[in-house]
Amino acid sequence: MRALIAAYAAGQVPDYQMSAWLMAAYLNGLDAAETDALTAALLHSGRVFDWSELGRPSADKHSTGGVGDKISLILAPLVAACGVLVPMVSGRGLGHTGGTLDKLEAIPGFSIQLAPEAMRTQLDEVGVVMVGQGPDLAPADGLLYALRDVTSTVEFEPFIVSSIVSKKVAEGAQALAYDVKCGSGAFMKTREAASHLARRLVDTTRALGREAAAVVTDMSQPLGEAVGNVLEVRESIEVLLGRGPADVRDLTLELAAMMLERSGAERDTAAARARARQALDSGAAWLRFLAMVEAQGGDRARIERPDGLPRAPVRLPVKAARAGRLAAIDTFGLGELVVAIGGGRRAKEDAIDPRVGLMVRVRLGAAVEEGDALAEIHLAAGDPGAVARAAACFTIADEAPPPPALVIERVA
Amino acid sequence: MRALIAAYAAGQVPDYQMSAWLMAAYLNGLDAAETDALTAALLHSGRVFDWSELGRPSADKHSTGGVGDKISLILAPLVAACGVLVPMVSGRGLGHTGGTLDKLEAIPGFSIQLAPEAMRTQLDEVGVVMVGQGPDLAPADGLLYALRDVTSTVEFEPFIVSSIVSKKVAEGAQALAYDVKCGSGAFMKTREAASHLARRLVDTTRALGREAAAVVTDMSQPLGEAVGNVLEVRESIEVLLGRGPADVRDLTLELAAMMLERSGAERDTAAARARARQALDSGAAWLRFLAMVEAQGGDRARIERPDGLPRAPVRLPVKAARAGRLAAIDTFGLGELVVAIGGGRRAKEDAIDPRVGLMVRVRLGAAVEEGDALAEIHLAAGDPGAVARAAACFTIADEAPPPPALVIERVA
Repeated sequence: MRALIAAYAAGQVPDYQMSAWLMAAYLNGLDAAETDALTAALLHSGRVFDWSELGRPSADKHSTGGVGDKISLILAPLVAACGVLVPMVSGRGLGHTGGTLDKLEAIPGFSIQLAPEAMRTQLDEVGVVMVGQGPDLAPADGLLYALRDVTSTVEFEPFIVSSIVSKKVAEGAQALAYDVKCGSGAFMKTREAASHLARRLVDTTRALGREAAAVVTDMSQPLGEAVGNVLEVRESIEVLLGRGPADVRDLTLELAAMMLERSGAERDTAAARARARQALDSGAAWLRFLAMVEAQGGDRARIERPDGLPRAPVRLPVKAARAGRLAAIDTFGLGELVVAIGGGRRAKEDAIDPRVGLMVRVRLGAAVEEGDALAEIHLAAGDPGAVARAAACFTIADEAPPPPALVIERVA
Repeated sequence: MRALIAAYAAGQVPDYQMSAWLMAAYLNGLDAAETDALTAALLHSGRVFDWSELGRPSADKHSTGGVGDKISLILAPLVAACGVLVPMVSGRGLGHTGGTLDKLEAIPGFSIQLAPEAMRTQLDEVGVVMVGQGPDLAPADGLLYALRDVTSTVEFEPFIVSSIVSKKVAEGAQALAYDVKCGSGAFMKTREAASHLARRLVDTTRALGREAAAVVTDMSQPLGEAVGNVLEVRESIEVLLGRGPADVRDLTLELAAMMLERSGAERDTAAARARARQALDSGAAWLRFLAMVEAQGGDRARIERPDGLPRAPVRLPVKAARAGRLAAIDTFGLGELVVAIGGGRRAKEDAIDPRVGLMVRVRLGAAVEEGDALAEIHLAAGDPGAVARAAACFTIADEAPPPPALVIERVA
C-alpha cells in the first residue's frame, strides 16, 4: 500500500490506474489491516508534526460534519485552557455542512494560514492554534480525494477513515476525539453506519500509535440554534460566556472530557468532566479564545462587543402553518438552504456571505401553535422563496416521537 | 452506453473516469443486453463498411488465437472461390499466438494496407481481401483496449465479446464464423469458458443484425505441424494444393461450410461442406489465393516455387528422451518459445524473423521411441537452450489419454 501511494504521489502511477484501483477497492472492500495500511501510507506522503518538544499533552477533535456544528470554536480554547495543546487543522464548508475555517474567517482579520514555526510559537504561548491544511499535510490524501470525487468512490468507509485519520494524525496531537454525526443532517444516515465508522476511526488511529475515542451524536436537528457563519460565531461566544444552547454546551464538555482523559491530562472521566466544566464556567476558555483570536490577527474588539460582527439586513420569521408537535426536521434541507442563500459553497471557488443563515427556535418534540416562529432566516435581500423553503423543512404533527438523545453512543 | 462511449471517444470523459467504469463493470459484471449495447457503441464509434452494393453474400471468420493457427490464409480464398465475398481484417501476433498479418507479410511484397476504395475494387474483382485494421474501424475499441491493458481488465468476457464483435461487424460481412480455441495453447483454458464465449459471440453478433455461428476447437496441441510465419505460409500452401495436415484441412472445411451456410450461399450444412471441399480439391481455392497475393502486391512466383520463401539457416531436431506415448503438449510454451527465438513479439514495436519456428512431428497419443524426432526447430543461429526448451514442452508417459477431438462443440 505504501509503494502504491508513494508512486501515485510521485506521479509514477497515472490517474487512470489509481482510479481503477479506487473502484476495485470500493467494490471489493478493504479490511481493517488494509485500511490501516492505506492510512499510514497517506500519512507518510507528507509532513508529520511532532509537538512533543513542548512537553505538554496534546489533543484534537474531528467531526464528520453537521448543520450548526460550531463545537470546535468553543472546544479548542477550552481544552487549551485545561493545559492540553490543541493543534487544530480544519477545513472549509462544502455542501450542506459548514466549515470551521469559514466561521473563523467571519471574525475580521482572523488568519487561518500559519507557517509551521508560527504554529509552534503560538501553541507554546497560547496553547491552541486553529488553521487550514497546508499543502504538505498528507498530500496524497488531497490527490486521492480529488480522484474519488470524480469516480463515485467518495462514500466508502475505508476511504473516509484513511482520509480523516491520516490528516488528523499528521497534525501531531497525541489523542484524538471523533464526533460521528448521525441523522438527517449528517453524511451517515443510520446508527449502524455511524457506529461502525466511529469504531474504525478509533481503531485505525490506535494502529497508527495515537490514543483515540469517539462519540456518535445526533444530527436529526441542528446543533444549537445558529446555522450560518457569523450566527454560529456569535452563538459560540454565548457558550464561552456561560450561556447559549444546552446541547452545544453539553457536547462541547463531552468532547473536552474525552480529549483531557485520552491525552492523559486527567486520570478518569469524572475528573476530566469537572476540569472542563470549570474551565468553561470560570471564563478561562473565553479568555483563551480571545488570546487565540488576537494571536491569529483577529479583531478582538469586534467579538467583545455584542454588535461587533456584521448582521444580515433582512431577517424574516419562518412560521408554523399549524398547531401540533415538531415531529421531524429536514436538517440536510436546512443546510442546503443556507448554501442557497449564500452562506455556503457548492464549488470550492464560491464566495460566501458570512452574515446569512438561520436561527432555529424550536427543538424536536416541542409543542407549537399556528403562527409561532419556528426559525428566523437571515438574508442579504428579501426572498420569500427562502422562507417557504425553510418552513417546508419542519414537520408538525399531532404526535411526535420522543426527542433523540444528543449522545447516542460512546466508543472507547 | 452509447453516450458514454461517444463522450469517451470524443475526449469528454477522461481516462481516469473510464478506467473506474471499466473496473466497476469488470467486478460487477455486464449482462447480455449491456454487452450488446457496449458492442453497438464501439461499432458506431467509427466507420461501418457495407458491401451490399456488390450484390453477393459476404462472410468472415475470427479465431480467438492459437498456436499454429494458419486457417485464415486457406479459408479466405477458399470461401471467395465459392462466390462469397471475404472482407477480412486481421491483427498482428502478440504474445504466444501468431497473427495473420505477420504470416501474410512473410510473402515478399504483400501489402496489408489498402484504402477503402481499393478494398472495394479488389473485393469486386478477386472476391477476397486480407488487410490490417485501419484507424477508422471501431476506434473507441482501440482506446478502450489500451486502457484495459493497463488496468487489469483485459480478461473479462463482455469486454472480449464487444471488442471482437464490434470490429468484425464493422468490416461489413453479413455472416461471421467464430473459432473459439480451448486448451493449453488458448486464452480460454476450460471448455466451459470457451463454450460460454462462443455462445455470447454468436448472440451479440445477431443482436447487431448479422448472422453468426461458432465452433469450440481443440488447442491442446498446435494446429497442423508448422508454427512460425514462413513455415505456416508454406503449410497453408500445402493444404491449398490438397495436401498438408488433416486437422488444418478439416477445420478449414468446417469453418468454410459455416460461412457458406450462414451467409446464405448454400442452403444447408451438407451442401455447404460439399461446395467447400470441391473448391479446395479442384484447385479453385489455390488459384484464388494466388490472385489475392498478386492483387495485394505479393510476389506470386515466390510462393509457386517450393523454395521461394526464405528458410532459417539452423534446423535442429527435438528428440524424445524416452519411449512411450505423447501424453501432453505445453502448447502455450511452444508459442512462447517461438516468440523467444524471434518469431513473435512481446511488444508492438518488436521486429520479427519470419523464418524461425517449429515443425511439430508428433500428435497427442502417438507412440514414440527414445531418440525419435518430436519436432524440428528452425533458428536464425545455433541455440541448444531452445532445443531443450522445446523438448520440455512434450510429456511422454507410459499411457496417454485418448486424443482430443478437433471440433469440441458447434454453436449455431
